[in-house]
Amino acid sequence: MSPSPFLTLALELARASIEAGGGPFGAVVVQGKRILGRGQNRVVSSRDPTAHAEIVAIRAAAAELGTHDLQGCEIFTSCEPCPMCLGAIYWARLARIHHACHRADAAAAGFDDQEFYAELARPPEERAIPLLVAERERGLEVFRAWLAKPDRRRY
Amino acid sequence: MSPSPFLTLALELARASIEAGGGPFGAVVVQGKRILGRGQNRVVSSRDPTAHAEIVAIRAAAAELGTHDLQGCEIFTSCEPCPMCLGAIYWARLARIHHACHRADAAAAGFDDQEFYAELARPPEERAIPLLVAERERGLEVFRAWLAKPDRRRY
Repeated sequence: MSPSPFLTLALELARASIEAGGGPFGAVVVQGKRILGRGQNRVVSSRDPTAHAEIVAIRAAAAELGTHDLQGCEIFTSCEPCPMCLGAIYWARLARIHHACHRADAAAAGFDDQEFYAELARPPEERAIPLLVAERERGLEVFRAWLAKPDRRRY
Repeated sequence: MSPSPFLTLALELARASIEAGGGPFGAVVVQGKRILGRGQNRVVSSRDPTAHAEIVAIRAAAAELGTHDLQGCEIFTSCEPCPMCLGAIYWARLARIHHACHRADAAAAGFDDQEFYAELARPPEERAIPLLVAERERGLEVFRAWLAKPDRRRY
């Protein structure tokens, strides 16, 4: 089977990102054969902890289509998405994920994706970052106000 | 115990977000007593599936400090963060999460946070969004290039 041109592009973006001072990750969001968004890791250079290749590509694709809903689109990424990016992929309603490396490969290259997957799998009270709960009743009031709004838009 | 002024602010941002056409979520990132970033859900209005309150607040805080590393900062949010936002909180190295509502409360209000937590807990081959793997060897070459770069910056 010949390599997908989109996965090849994601890998080229990853390699070019290293030269450009970014992390070694690249991603492309496509609709059929049309490229909607490209992304490279820009965490350090953009001073933005959320600027992973997949997030950048998803935001670019959403801007290109003018909607938050990327249903039916696919993402090609140089490495298995971290929990943040996988969550974004679910919210964007992408149809399929294509990736080259695995989370264990990223760990071997010094990245915490695998550790964060393990953290999310733990019960909240056993995690490294504590979750403290308060004011739930006032929070529920906000959701009630949301549900009472007739023109609310689901996403 | 009197309510935290930051959690109160997060809840006020959530309520105001509903009026402004956003989702019913608000968040604040603080360093000690200093507010670094505020966020409201802007998914529909910004046409950006990643524009959750916590992501918006983290990006604002990182811009304010001029770094991706928010170590020691805390986040106050109207609801338990979804997997995307929890991942972002780990990457940002926040020290503590304070929230009002739970993922089950968000589910009752029509949001998919709880379902996405369940998806991430499943083995990749059992998930609703398939992961297709190819070109791992070429992906590993990119990581080798990264590890060979003497001035690479971890994040």
